[in-house]
Amino acid sequence: MEANGSLRLGCPVTYLHSCLRGAGQVMFQNSSWTGLLFLIGIFYGAYAEGQPLVAWGGAVALLVSTITGYVLEQPSDEGEEGLWGFNGILVGCGIMTFVGNTVGAWIAIVLCSALTVWVRRGFNNIMSPWGVSSFTFPFVFCTWIFLLCARTMSALPSEYMSAVSLPTAETAIVHPLDLPHLLVYWLKGVSQVFLINNWVSGVLFLIGLALCSRWAAFWAAAGSGMALFIAIAYGAPSSDIANGLYGFSPVLTAIALGCTFYKPSWRSALWCVLGTVTTVFIQGAMDVLFMPVGLPTLTAPFCIATWLFIFPKFKIGR
Amino acid sequence: MEANGSLRLGCPVTYLHSCLRGAGQVMFQNSSWTGLLFLIGIFYGAYAEGQPLVAWGGAVALLVSTITGYVLEQPSDEGEEGLWGFNGILVGCGIMTFVGNTVGAWIAIVLCSALTVWVRRGFNNIMSPWGVSSFTFPFVFCTWIFLLCARTMSALPSEYMSAVSLPTAETAIVHPLDLPHLLVYWLKGVSQVFLINNWVSGVLFLIGLALCSRWAAFWAAAGSGMALFIAIAYGAPSSDIANGLYGFSPVLTAIALGCTFYKPSWRSALWCVLGTVTTVFIQGAMDVLFMPVGLPTLTAPFCIATWLFIFPKFKIGR
Amino acid sequence: MEANGSLRLGCPVTYLHSCLRGAGQVMFQNSSWTGLLFLIGIFYGAYAEGQPLVAWGGAVALLVSTITGYVLEQPSDEGEEGLWGFNGILVGCGIMTFVGNTVGAWIAIVLCSALTVWVRRGFNNIMSPWGVSSFTFPFVFCTWIFLLCARTMSALPSEYMSAVSLPTAETAIVHPLDLPHLLVYWLKGVSQVFLINNWVSGVLFLIGLALCSRWAAFWAAAGSGMALFIAIAYGAPSSDIANGLYGFSPVLTAIALGCTFYKPSWRSALWCVLGTVTTVFIQGAMDVLFMPVGLPTLTAPFCIATWLFIFPKFKIGR
Repeated sequence: MEANGSLRLGCPVTYLHSCLRGAGQVMFQNSSWTGLLFLIGIFYGAYAEGQPLVAWGGAVALLVSTITGYVLEQPSDEGEEGLWGFNGILVGCGIMTFVGNTVGAWIAIVLCSALTVWVRRGFNNIMSPWGVSSFTFPFVFCTWIFLLCARTMSALPSEYMSAVSLPTAETAIVHPLDLPHLLVYWLKGVSQVFLINNWVSGVLFLIGLALCSRWAAFWAAAGSGMALFIAIAYGAPSSDIANGLYGFSPVLTAIALGCTFYKPSWRSALWCVLGTVTTVFIQGAMDVLFMPVGLPTLTAPFCIATWLFIFPKFKIGR
Repeated sequence: MEANGSLRLGCPVTYLHSCLRGAGQVMFQNSSWTGLLFLIGIFYGAYAEGQPLVAWGGAVALLVSTITGYVLEQPSDEGEEGLWGFNGILVGCGIMTFVGNTVGAWIAIVLCSALTVWVRRGFNNIMSPWGVSSFTFPFVFCTWIFLLCARTMSALPSEYMSAVSLPTAETAIVHPLDLPHLLVYWLKGVSQVFLINNWVSGVLFLIGLALCSRWAAFWAAAGSGMALFIAIAYGAPSSDIANGLYGFSPVLTAIALGCTFYKPSWRSALWCVLGTVTTVFIQGAMDVLFMPVGLPTLTAPFCIATWLFIFPKFKIGR
Repeated sequence: MEANGSLRLGCPVTYLHSCLRGAGQVMFQNSSWTGLLFLIGIFYGAYAEGQPLVAWGGAVALLVSTITGYVLEQPSDEGEEGLWGFNGILVGCGIMTFVGNTVGAWIAIVLCSALTVWVRRGFNNIMSPWGVSSFTFPFVFCTWIFLLCARTMSALPSEYMSAVSLPTAETAIVHPLDLPHLLVYWLKGVSQVFLINNWVSGVLFLIGLALCSRWAAFWAAAGSGMALFIAIAYGAPSSDIANGLYGFSPVLTAIALGCTFYKPSWRSALWCVLGTVTTVFIQGAMDVLFMPVGLPTLTAPFCIATWLFIFPKFKIGR
């Protein structure tokens, strides 16, 4: 980050960097190269899984939210670090994952991704007395609004959302647990951070992380692995496990606690393991809590768990 | 407001002014005349729709909450401005709209409207570090408690509450969209601020606003109009649209952002439009979220949206 | 509390005192004798009702959470006062009341009771600007996570949890309301503070309270009595009333407002009665709110009501 953090509006290169870093900041990396690999992973996975609009939604929302930061004259060092775009890109991927391809959905993406920029600023204002930030919660909060609307507004068809139901125990285990499959589930846990259900994207995301921080790549991989182990050991629904849906929030918690907010050390590693395991249970709990309205948790379990492990303000490794 | 803000307990004229301003403050107007027109509108609409108890519930709750402010020796300038009563009147209208006419319901109105006075003080204490107030959220929070109880306590019959259900898409559009009907829906959006489903009341409320502030009347009308447009464009449930249920929260958001917390200007007008549109989606989202327990959102969408647009603390027009 | 609050890790007597006081602090009593009587009541009631694991779960969780406080080097005066253990013991009783006896459940108890120690520290950090503490909410929040998981993870069988359902009015009153039965319901309201459904335990808890504070014993008894009266008068579900489920949160609110946070006086007594009555309605409301996921409220109604009556910061009796 430059000492003089001024951004020249209209300079396409600076703007491009802001956008790429916005992608990178989803996993706390202030690096255009990491962001580029994330985008490649998103587009590869989205096309491979036959959902190209998920990638395009993310790209449009990334552009919109970054522009919004300029227009609102937010602090420009935040823009250079990509802090305007990381909620936006997730909004675009999120809405296009669950909502059908309509004009209304695209307008919702534009509005919702712009909204995250000032909602993030507002949430950070609220949370600043406690020394934490809002993480990806602006994305979660704003996207929830539009996904809930999709249940009641015909211009936002909820065709890809899960069915609403009262919680019921799933008993049948239909997904094999041999080593090749476990590897796929593990990597999908990483790829689902961007709502991508594709193991190759998971590999690309890990490479992107390693470009900027080996520790981040390690903890992302370890977070998904731990989540996989706990989810299987506790008999979580096997389809969720197989699609990496128990992995993406623990991946983020592990990066946050393992090497972002605490310096890597044995003490912080233990803390990170506890936080990651807790995230798995918060994921399961929120899955149940939202079943009656069929709402996805998005990355809320990561936000909640990481807050719980930062609020006590222990002096661990930093 | 007088420099010496002391209220003489026992002076009926002062007390009456406090009550009338309490009605006016529901839409942010510190004016007895505005409050009087609101009360006329409430009584007219309640009798016209065959629900006179909604008006009487509101009147009783307004008296009780204003007295509670005196008894608790709250700051008397707040009383003179009507800040004790605006949550109370909504409590009375709210409980009598949804709960049957029983002794238990009337005791609930007395307890709940008194409760809002210190819950408001508590919420304002919590929120003061961020420079916002609790708006009508004390009414919302306290009324939710008793409406939820109505599902499980026989002394609070839930006969006028909507059925509980898992969210389902409503497809049939059964309400006509020609101009005369649209005008009615638009004015009902205003009248529903006080839970009154009557377009004449909406006219009376707009006149009441105009007596105190032309800008407030303009933004109330514009807020309901924008909400109507967005709700129709996005295919929200047509019965909700026809009854003005997509309008009342945006009306309040528009008054709050358009001319109460920001000075009217082109910049604040744009901000207000964004906030009003966002309120419509929060309304739809909360409608879905509460379907499994059949709880009305009350004015929570207004509170949430307005907070989201004030927390960032942008310097817009003031 | 000693001036020099240092705890000597490894001194079994000090550790035992911390644990016993942890039991006592559930009802705000910093006394080993009170804690001992609470434990006797828990074990008596659990065995009498054929659920011995509820008592053993509580005991294990009390030990684990108190050890966690030592290991994390929390302020040792808090440990001496039993502030590490009171959430823990409730976690153990809570999980074993609702979840079947599996290895997974016991690991959950260990993790969840440890979790409460730093979640409490975090919540207290958040709430300190407003001069309140988190009460038993760390227990509530952390236990909710694992109880919700029990709906979706087979290693946490939800066999003792209530069925999920959309809210429906219960009409049949099947529990007799003669004096002997009312006495049982009243005492069960006290025993359910520790999730024990046994009137003798209720007597033991009241004796334990009286050992430390006559006022606390009085308000506990009065709180359960008021709750019983209001719940019957408003026609709450009779099975909940008969099992003391409308009593345990008001018991805690009454002790908190009647003699813990305000000095006993006529003014604080009136305030306490209002708070206790409000707790009954919050209990009914949360019961309905959680029906679709079949989650128990635990002591959340007490926490919410007591916060609502402390946040306004009235100068009542202290």
